[in-house]
Amino acid sequence: MGLTFYERVGFEGRRPSPFSWRIRYALAHKEIDFDVHPVRFADVETIRRLSGQHLTPIIDHDGQVTHETWDIANYLEDRFPDRPSLFGGATGRAIARFINDWASSQLSPPLRHVIYADFPAVLDPGDRAYFRSTRERDLGMSLEAACADPEKKLAAFQQACAPLERCLSTQPYVCGGAPAYADYIVFSIFQWARLGSPKEVVAKPSALADWRSRMIALYDHLGDHFLGYPAGSLERS
Amino acid sequence: MGLTFYERVGFEGRRPSPFSWRIRYALAHKEIDFDVHPVRFADVETIRRLSGQHLTPIIDHDGQVTHETWDIANYLEDRFPDRPSLFGGATGRAIARFINDWASSQLSPPLRHVIYADFPAVLDPGDRAYFRSTRERDLGMSLEAACADPEKKLAAFQQACAPLERCLSTQPYVCGGAPAYADYIVFSIFQWARLGSPKEVVAKPSALADWRSRMIALYDHLGDHFLGYPAGSLERS
Repeated sequence: MGLTFYERVGFEGRRPSPFSWRIRYALAHKEIDFDVHPVRFADVETIRRLSGQHLTPIIDHDGQVTHETWDIANYLEDRFPDRPSLFGGATGRAIARFINDWASSQLSPPLRHVIYADFPAVLDPGDRAYFRSTRERDLGMSLEAACADPEKKLAAFQQACAPLERCLSTQPYVCGGAPAYADYIVFSIFQWARLGSPKEVVAKPSALADWRSRMIALYDHLGDHFLGYPAGSLERS
Repeated sequence: MGLTFYERVGFEGRRPSPFSWRIRYALAHKEIDFDVHPVRFADVETIRRLSGQHLTPIIDHDGQVTHETWDIANYLEDRFPDRPSLFGGATGRAIARFINDWASSQLSPPLRHVIYADFPAVLDPGDRAYFRSTRERDLGMSLEAACADPEKKLAAFQQACAPLERCLSTQPYVCGGAPAYADYIVFSIFQWARLGSPKEVVAKPSALADWRSRMIALYDHLGDHFLGYPAGSLERS
């Protein structure tokens, strides 16, 4: 019994999935112990058998299986009400839902056009062809074509980050004086970039860069707990 | 004694300012009575003398003058703690700050390129030249040039609204089951469009359109309390 975290694992044990990161931080915030069940893209049948769908992460808590990060965060908040809150009440939870939708619709799409050509190098070699074929089908072009004109693509992503820079210039975390789930949602996007590409996507100096450093350092430097982007991998991948 | 709301007033008593609307809704939410002191762009010296700056709205509460809508909302929340909360706690307040920054950096700029050519018609005739000259200086082009290629401009604004559509498909208000200040921030942008232009900027049917209707109907149909865009004004302005 306990909590098992089914998490996508990449090349040499890397953790490049943004969705895993937001749940890892949520589990640390809630001070919940867990076992990790590593999965690869190739393990889709294991995930489907457990959760009825193919996306990770999923959690299995005493036999109760939950998928989709927003639902996992809500499950943890409701099942562990005596632990530190991820949302700070009903209004905080509702607006965090907006942040979740904002990150997925406004941050992730432009970031794909910055990092996707670099990304296969952080996946298990056996998962790279699957990643490339599914993403290129979704994009309607090669990963390299999607990342052409890199300065323009980076500028588009950084323009989408403008409200973060403004907000974090006035308060240390998205959630105020201390981090909570809305911070973990947003940080997971930057962690995806940081571990999935050698490119620096955050302008410095900036309030956003300072916040990211604080986020990496939380929970005994959780953000640095796994390997970073492999040196020289652009040649190797 | 009491609360005086210094609010920009336009043609025939219209209220086209988005900043006024978010404070009007906040005052209604807090059930606070107030007097209105209407101001025009031409009344800049009155505002500067009271608040040390030239932007509206401002409030004067028993001699305490506050400007900048975010600071006004926080003032109301802290000075009227026994009234319904605008933020639902510290985390809700902090994330609402992000919404404020998101609306001003991601919604307002593209919306200007949709409605600005229409906007002078809702201002007092004596304020139109001031509005045009200051906004054209900021834009570096005429209002009409800023609004050229209207389909493309509307598409850019609607793309920025994508996270609202997603979020409002899962919950009735940005703040959850009931509206609060983050809703008023976002609604004020749509009210600006609705009262400042004859164009419909919200796709229908949509969760966003339904939410806007609910927001208009709040507080005894507050959103319809003043005149709409003047019929035929495109010819008149």
